[in-house]
Amino acid sequence: MNELEEKTLTKTYVYEGPVVNLREDTAEMPDHTIANRTLVEHPGGVGIALEDEEGRFYFVSQWRYAQSVVTLEYPAGKREKGEDDLAVAKREIAEETGYEGKDWVYLGTIYPTPAYDSETIGLYYAKKGNYVGQHLDQDEHINVSLLTLDEITDKIIAGEVHDAKTVSMTFLIKEMKERGLIQ
Amino acid sequence: MNELEEKTLTKTYVYEGPVVNLREDTAEMPDHTIANRTLVEHPGGVGIALEDEEGRFYFVSQWRYAQSVVTLEYPAGKREKGEDDLAVAKREIAEETGYEGKDWVYLGTIYPTPAYDSETIGLYYAKKGNYVGQHLDQDEHINVSLLTLDEITDKIIAGEVHDAKTVSMTFLIKEMKERGLIQ
Repeated sequence: MNELEEKTLTKTYVYEGPVVNLREDTAEMPDHTIANRTLVEHPGGVGIALEDEEGRFYFVSQWRYAQSVVTLEYPAGKREKGEDDLAVAKREIAEETGYEGKDWVYLGTIYPTPAYDSETIGLYYAKKGNYVGQHLDQDEHINVSLLTLDEITDKIIAGEVHDAKTVSMTFLIKEMKERGLIQ
Repeated sequence: MNELEEKTLTKTYVYEGPVVNLREDTAEMPDHTIANRTLVEHPGGVGIALEDEEGRFYFVSQWRYAQSVVTLEYPAGKREKGEDDLAVAKREIAEETGYEGKDWVYLGTIYPTPAYDSETIGLYYAKKGNYVGQHLDQDEHINVSLLTLDEITDKIIAGEVHDAKTVSMTFLIKEMKERGLIQ
């Protein structure tokens, strides 16, 4: 048993909705005291870095309602029930950019906010494949743009990029290219 | 006006709790259709990278209830009402490691999950200052460890680090050191 582990004692759903569920649990701490734990349940999803023949990556600009700003992000999408991450990545990259990916590389999985949210994001890299046409959801309005790794890095350092998966993915790709883990 | 902007039409709190609030809003899309938007309200916080005289950084290992795992993360803490980010960073780094920070550098701000959560995290770097003693919250159980930038980078590439702020901060510090923005 892990010396830091907290054991769930009670598990109570106080909200169930289309995007998240919310639980108010009680848990036993390592020192046997009892603490309340709020938990947002979210299915999580994937982020995809698609690189073209000239070393440019696809980005989407979109209104992020929870932040009230337009963000610049790698394409991403939510898991559907029972779908594995690579399948989500393949579907979402084609829907958002119009291009299939090929030569897929798994970059890792991040927990955006592990303190109170179950969301995880699987991160993938792919090279640009066949054109199959863009298909956006009805309430999805995005602009697509192309940037090199150096250009997106400069934007991050200039404070123009805030999405955590986009910051993480950019540097993971740079590091993995330097180590020869991505060709 | 931004061509991607969504305008709030109705704003309804369906849950208010100690950690997050939850809203079910309706918003007008850029094409004037109406969409539902779920929003988790969270006060956000800060992450702090504290470097000692030998180039080692302080990390905390803790049970993250929402992920049911022990994570390795830079020290972090939540904003209290009206507190500015640097004040939070100064308080939290002393509470979690026992050391004050000095020569503070702002690294940027990330949005962990901008699609549905208002949380933002201000990221800071500091050098190790005076010892003032560790003070943990009652329900906080953590182990503190020291790693160099190369060691934490190797752990990230090996898939042993998942916290989004920790991945982001590690690479931001490396990049800013290379650019001479951190001495």
